[in-house]
Amino acid sequence: MADKPLILVCNDDGITAPGIKVLVERMQKLGKVVVVAPDSPQSGMGHAITINHPLRLVEMDYFGKDVLAYQCSGTPADCVKLAVDKVLHRNPDLLVSGINHGSNSSINILYSGTMSAAMEGAIEGMNAIGFSLQDYSYHADFSVAAEVVDVVAANVLNNGLPPDTLLNVNIPKVTREELKGIKVCRQARAKWEEEFDERVDPYGRNYYWLTGEFQQRDHGEDTDEWALKNGYASVVPVQFDLTAHHAIGTLNTWELNEEIK
Amino acid sequence: MADKPLILVCNDDGITAPGIKVLVERMQKLGKVVVVAPDSPQSGMGHAITINHPLRLVEMDYFGKDVLAYQCSGTPADCVKLAVDKVLHRNPDLLVSGINHGSNSSINILYSGTMSAAMEGAIEGMNAIGFSLQDYSYHADFSVAAEVVDVVAANVLNNGLPPDTLLNVNIPKVTREELKGIKVCRQARAKWEEEFDERVDPYGRNYYWLTGEFQQRDHGEDTDEWALKNGYASVVPVQFDLTAHHAIGTLNTWELNEEIK
Repeated sequence: MADKPLILVCNDDGITAPGIKVLVERMQKLGKVVVVAPDSPQSGMGHAITINHPLRLVEMDYFGKDVLAYQCSGTPADCVKLAVDKVLHRNPDLLVSGINHGSNSSINILYSGTMSAAMEGAIEGMNAIGFSLQDYSYHADFSVAAEVVDVVAANVLNNGLPPDTLLNVNIPKVTREELKGIKVCRQARAKWEEEFDERVDPYGRNYYWLTGEFQQRDHGEDTDEWALKNGYASVVPVQFDLTAHHAIGTLNTWELNEEIK
Repeated sequence: MADKPLILVCNDDGITAPGIKVLVERMQKLGKVVVVAPDSPQSGMGHAITINHPLRLVEMDYFGKDVLAYQCSGTPADCVKLAVDKVLHRNPDLLVSGINHGSNSSINILYSGTMSAAMEGAIEGMNAIGFSLQDYSYHADFSVAAEVVDVVAANVLNNGLPPDTLLNVNIPKVTREELKGIKVCRQARAKWEEEFDERVDPYGRNYYWLTGEFQQRDHGEDTDEWALKNGYASVVPVQFDLTAHHAIGTLNTWELNEEIK
């Protein structure tokens, strides 16, 4: 048992979501599994961390006696930080987050709690992967996603990820026969066209629901959006150095120091 | 008045924080100012958006009669989305976020509500800048920061930013005499070494406060951390394409499709 890799599992839909259960089952075939996941859904939390409230961490047996599991009152990023400091006392060999109920392709990575857990792990130096299924349904069929999970996780354990890199894996809503393969991609350029649904509460005050339409702005065939539309699971290598290195030269031509010095 | 640029001001410390007041005053010299900011502090919110609760938007006159201002119940990213859709009905010519009470240099950009507002603006195609002062005090002296704001904002209005790029501007806690200048930089490699402060509540249950120590892991002299330590304000151009393009070649050598097809 000493040789088995230690695998930390997290998500953002909460510890009772069906997607994380599938992920735990699949990871049990690859190593020793520990779960630290939010005690309630955290979708849309981006890379939030909790600094103004204390955090709770409660052991529970939702995944059976072979899986040490904790529910946490914080965000996905909090879960990873707490897992390392208070549960594992070392980095796991692999961190997997998900399987998210809904896509985190393209620009959605920025809003994704699933991916923020993976990114937090990568910053800490872990091999980290976020998995998302293009199906928002609570009762989605995760069987195709589970096969992709097996392949990608095994490859990461075998090869290790390049330094300071994590993976954003999205699986299309297709049958096993329709799945064309797994494709390494870049993040597509896209945005949400927001429309706020304006309503009036029983006390006469306005309130707004965030809604919107996803706008594809990228016609490349090397993007995650293209892959998903064409029946492939997409694998995007992701970095957390956000520097726009190509813009440094331009900015150095600006007059930033005329008045300062 | 028709020629004056339209400037949207946001932050994450909340609409009553001293830092946003300084930013509003400085922007009034450059254009017509509209404020949409959170009604309470949102530090550490990362790029969170609110999808499970309705949002409130309430007009208020905190900045005097010349400044249209709204407080919003959502996150900084929500504020920018609502401002465009329900207040401005078009993109502003400039979006400025801050001035944050505390640094957002290096890896802190990922956890920063200040920068998430700016990033949301950049995704929408705006010229967007986040400003942060390396001083967490509520009663910090913003006078040096205000001069940096003037210079950077004027340069952005004059030159426009490269496409899909925003600016992360951090100002050191120095006197005007100590400020050496404004330096274009890359994001430093660094991480937080977490330590959770474990306590017991009056009912005998454990809880945790997130604390930690910032660990510099980058000895380059072209980073934002180096600039700030050496008396410069740092300007990092930031992108929201998180693809680790350099890793795509490596991943394409993996055996991702042996079992799938």
